[in-house]
Amino acid sequence: MSDRLIKKPTTGMKDILPEEMEIRDYVEATVRRVYAGYGFQHIETPVVEHIENLCSDQGGENEKLIFKVMKRGEKLDIAGAKGENDLADSGLRYDLTLPLSRYYSNNNQILTMPFKALQIGNVFRADRPQKGRFRQFKQCDIDIIGDPSDLAEIELLNATTALLSELGFSGFRVRINDRRLLKAMGQYAGFDEAALPEIFIILDKMDKIGLEGVEQELKASGYDEEGIRKYLELFKDKDDTQEGIRRIGELLGDNVPEGVTDDLIEIFSAVNEIKSGDFRLSFDPTLVRGMGYYTGTIFEIEMEEFGSSVAGGGRYDGMIGRFTGQNVPACGFSIGFERIITILMDKGFKIPDASSKTAFLIEKGVSAEKLASIMSEAQELRKRGETVLIARMAKNRKFQKDNLERSGYTSFKDYYRD
Amino acid sequence: MSDRLIKKPTTGMKDILPEEMEIRDYVEATVRRVYAGYGFQHIETPVVEHIENLCSDQGGENEKLIFKVMKRGEKLDIAGAKGENDLADSGLRYDLTLPLSRYYSNNNQILTMPFKALQIGNVFRADRPQKGRFRQFKQCDIDIIGDPSDLAEIELLNATTALLSELGFSGFRVRINDRRLLKAMGQYAGFDEAALPEIFIILDKMDKIGLEGVEQELKASGYDEEGIRKYLELFKDKDDTQEGIRRIGELLGDNVPEGVTDDLIEIFSAVNEIKSGDFRLSFDPTLVRGMGYYTGTIFEIEMEEFGSSVAGGGRYDGMIGRFTGQNVPACGFSIGFERIITILMDKGFKIPDASSKTAFLIEKGVSAEKLASIMSEAQELRKRGETVLIARMAKNRKFQKDNLERSGYTSFKDYYRD
Repeated sequence: MSDRLIKKPTTGMKDILPEEMEIRDYVEATVRRVYAGYGFQHIETPVVEHIENLCSDQGGENEKLIFKVMKRGEKLDIAGAKGENDLADSGLRYDLTLPLSRYYSNNNQILTMPFKALQIGNVFRADRPQKGRFRQFKQCDIDIIGDPSDLAEIELLNATTALLSELGFSGFRVRINDRRLLKAMGQYAGFDEAALPEIFIILDKMDKIGLEGVEQELKASGYDEEGIRKYLELFKDKDDTQEGIRRIGELLGDNVPEGVTDDLIEIFSAVNEIKSGDFRLSFDPTLVRGMGYYTGTIFEIEMEEFGSSVAGGGRYDGMIGRFTGQNVPACGFSIGFERIITILMDKGFKIPDASSKTAFLIEKGVSAEKLASIMSEAQELRKRGETVLIARMAKNRKFQKDNLERSGYTSFKDYYRD
Repeated sequence: MSDRLIKKPTTGMKDILPEEMEIRDYVEATVRRVYAGYGFQHIETPVVEHIENLCSDQGGENEKLIFKVMKRGEKLDIAGAKGENDLADSGLRYDLTLPLSRYYSNNNQILTMPFKALQIGNVFRADRPQKGRFRQFKQCDIDIIGDPSDLAEIELLNATTALLSELGFSGFRVRINDRRLLKAMGQYAGFDEAALPEIFIILDKMDKIGLEGVEQELKASGYDEEGIRKYLELFKDKDDTQEGIRRIGELLGDNVPEGVTDDLIEIFSAVNEIKSGDFRLSFDPTLVRGMGYYTGTIFEIEMEEFGSSVAGGGRYDGMIGRFTGQNVPACGFSIGFERIITILMDKGFKIPDASSKTAFLIEKGVSAEKLASIMSEAQELRKRGETVLIARMAKNRKFQKDNLERSGYTSFKDYYRD
């Protein structure tokens, strides 16, 4: 036999221990149950995607993070390879949105329209390892494809707020905005369209550096002072209700495409009316969301006590066209599965109605008849939904019981040989 | 924008459609529930494993099937690479047994002993694509680590037969044997230990080519005629009950290590006594099972009507020692998840107690008040566990309803603007 094998997982990946797994399973089951009630259909795409699809994104920021899978057999030509992409034919998906768009394009003829998809799956990013961040992590996305109307946004928001409530969260804040409103605000201030991406990056810091900080950064980047003044005026009004949407819409006038503010108001009022949970719905004209593919509404859920956002999404009407040549309306919401698990574990979350756990400890040498009757007794309890562990009695029984107690076993039965 | 992206999944992988996914989710939930009753703890290992661990297997047959993951950044030296393994630092796991052994070695100090693990996860093999065989597929394994006694085998067999029964299967056959018995039979016939692997490959064909076929192949391979006669004599007695085990044990005498036949008989009687399902337990001295790592009992479940085996497993006491340097008793049972899904889909399996599905179709232009009241109605139904889809009324309503009916929607409510 050669050297010892390696015990630790590969860099940045983790083994999931039973205690965490119980909570993950509970959350997954809750996700499936709640979202199924809204007609979302669970689907799955392969973990491995075409390298061409993965590397197609504008900007190429994601490409550095891709785990690339090598070609095999005759197709692998190491001597003739000029670069990485001559050696790889595929890679591990880094999100669920690109694979979903591929899936929809591949299967749309047999899917129900509008197509409401639920995905729960691992994605992979070769990020620099850091505490609490892993290179394989679970994402949980819902998407509605083929519905151009704001019913899609309303359903996504209702479903996700209902889910978070079901998981015991309250007092969170749901921020909404629209990319087209963001663009209109830039136009209104007289900024060049080409400058908008950079301006949005600065605007996105509003939470952290405040209005003055944003003003300074915009000035430092050399934008027109009058434009900056006009731009920041828009954010001084802190009315985050639907009144705030209406007023900003009136200010912007023809800069906003028709229907955008009306739809945003309708979404706002419908979600607030139903209120599937204890949360604050908040219009936030400074919400940007990083992903380049968003084309309309954007939203994000944050929990103050946990510092960061736990869910985010928006409308991305252009992505499917990259597969089919024809744009298809699409809108999605992704919850931060790992973030939610971490929060629940930190809170000491206990799974409701967990089954009772009994251990039967059997001395070596009990007769075949006795063994069979012990096992039958265990089967009866199991049929009633209880957990029964059957194990040999250890020499150190105290140690064995302590160990089992830590795993949640609350009752013990000892069986000796006659 | 560059060229169109690729719609199909990568070669040999598949998109899972909603209808299949429903059945997969049902089976997975059943697996988790039934096995939890036996005290198996659900765990997960990363999909990506160290290349050193994956390529360590004797023989190297698996190595050809590995999807290798390329090194990244500075570590990737294409010009200096002499072979594949200079370019890869990891790969996708091809089974769940090797990662489990690594997991146990890495975490054993904090696990409950004996450690009873349930894994449900995707594995990857770059096999030649063929009908019904995919390069990413789900495996579902239970393993008991740290129990040297035959209680482990009994629990694995009871749990798995109970699971298959819960999934509606009956009339299947559970074959058991022991690697040590196989070896003893070879010794009894006077074969060289070095020849045993080849002899087992021939013996394994008994089902297909019969006793005469096996005899011919052994002769063709040049084994001693008297040895062959003595060897095949062992398989002429078709008593597959525990009486058959006892008799073969007596015949083999000192060739069998002490306790092996007694344990096999105890397993046989305990599983037959409890009989958690309608199946036939069958001692089969010709059962071999391919994997080189088995060291003791081996078992397999087959369903005649579906042609092939649906589950298999055995004892592999040597594998964990490859990580820790110290052997640890281990025994596992793997059900063919994909096989079971295919059988259920072919049978037209219907999920018991599926929830009722209603579609609310809403005309464009209903007032905000009406929309809110429709949504509240939907929320009420959802709270009661029903599925409610909310969608815009399509222009072609007949087409829309037909499409929804195919997805299981049985009732419809139309809402018009006033």
